[in-house]
Amino acid sequence: MKLVIGNKNYSSWSLRPWLLLRAHDIDFEEIMIQLATAATASEIDQYNSAGKVPVLLDQGLTVWDSLAICEYVSEHYLAGKGWPADPARRAEARACSAEMHAGFASLREAMPMNCRASGRRVLISDALARDIERIDALWSQMLQRHGGPWLFGEFSIADCMFAPVVFRFSTYAVDISSLSRTYMDTALAHPAMLDWLSQARAEAATIDRSEVGR
Amino acid sequence: MKLVIGNKNYSSWSLRPWLLLRAHDIDFEEIMIQLATAATASEIDQYNSAGKVPVLLDQGLTVWDSLAICEYVSEHYLAGKGWPADPARRAEARACSAEMHAGFASLREAMPMNCRASGRRVLISDALARDIERIDALWSQMLQRHGGPWLFGEFSIADCMFAPVVFRFSTYAVDISSLSRTYMDTALAHPAMLDWLSQARAEAATIDRSEVGR
Ligand SMILES: N[C@@H](CCC(=O)N[C@@H](CS)C(=O)NCC(=O)O)C(=O)O
Ligand SMILES: N[C@@H](CCC(=O)N[C@@H](CS)C(=O)NCC(=O)O)C(=O)O
Repeated sequence: MKLVIGNKNYSSWSLRPWLLLRAHDIDFEEIMIQLATAATASEIDQYNSAGKVPVLLDQGLTVWDSLAICEYVSEHYLAGKGWPADPARRAEARACSAEMHAGFASLREAMPMNCRASGRRVLISDALARDIERIDALWSQMLQRHGGPWLFGEFSIADCMFAPVVFRFSTYAVDISSLSRTYMDTALAHPAMLDWLSQARAEAATIDRSEVGR
Repeated sequence: MKLVIGNKNYSSWSLRPWLLLRAHDIDFEEIMIQLATAATASEIDQYNSAGKVPVLLDQGLTVWDSLAICEYVSEHYLAGKGWPADPARRAEARACSAEMHAGFASLREAMPMNCRASGRRVLISDALARDIERIDALWSQMLQRHGGPWLFGEFSIADCMFAPVVFRFSTYAVDISSLSRTYMDTALAHPAMLDWLSQARAEAATIDRSEVGR
């Protein structure tokens, strides 16, 4: 199995399935494509015509899109255990994940994932503040309802979907509730998150439009 | 079971789970909230704190987000048959659906769903042209690979996810391949799509920012 990803420092969508695979010790080969170069588009095109990473290649099958890859991995390698076993929790976990997948445009725009950018601050517009507030409320609600330490008790795909936000809130030191802060500490201490971070820090390439704040 | 939706004429995300439920003759009560009024936010807030429609209410459970609702309906009411039975097809159907869910910002922005706006034309920017081209390529590829008449052979959640795009391409008379055109004809002839359209046409409310083109 091969997972095509972008630069670890910047590629938020790549982190999601990578984390799911690593958290469950599933073996895969990593293919890394530098984003934002003249060759990026044609390199991605070798694997998939959607023009985006991540892409999973498994036994002749190509699965693109981070959420769809997580669903596939859960079905084929985890006997469904990527999601909570309880049907009601599972429905909620999928709702949180799909809300994240389709939403939070201001957060993505104003706070690009940049794992190395510790200590940077960005201006908090009203739209950005609303995105932050919603995520904080959602995390707190799920942690309270299901008892933590992960959003749905045990680690699940929902945590993978929000992992890039955890890096964002951490590097840009976003002000959130103490309950959400505890959740971030849990996520940041996960061995796979620590690995991703140290590999991101070791990368040399920079992407100008993702270098924001000061 | 209750499905909270927005105006049929404009609420593209609402159409998706509505179509899935109707296509499978699953009984539900419809609760309609007018979008873009002074009361919209507080009305949605009665049902869910994400501030968006659609929302599904079923036996004490609240499921928000169109894709997550479709997954829930498939699991609980269709024994998984919302997706193709073949695992490889299912993975592809989820990839198409998740790509649609997270992407195509230019299409959403420049061509808001407006079922009544037949005959309108909008200016096709480069970014919009790329979105249209990608969807046309994706539809054609899936129709060719799986034989039609739906994207994955039989009707599936992937068709629900793209149903709002079918209305957009139809009202704004977008130029696409003849294979994709055949697919649109199939979708537009589905009894539930015809019902949605006639109910959209019967609505009196208009939303200014969704009235584009001429
Ligand atoms: N819906 C996709 C979105 C993926 C996406 O936008 N990936 C970005 C990088 S994080 C990308 O590949 N962009 C193409 C480029 O930078 O050339 C997913 O979740 O996988
Ligand atoms: N990710 C959500 C997005 C839903 C969404 O953006 N819905 C729009 C209407 S189609 C909405 O409720 N907007 C709130 C408003 O207009 O006040 C989903 O797929 O359900």
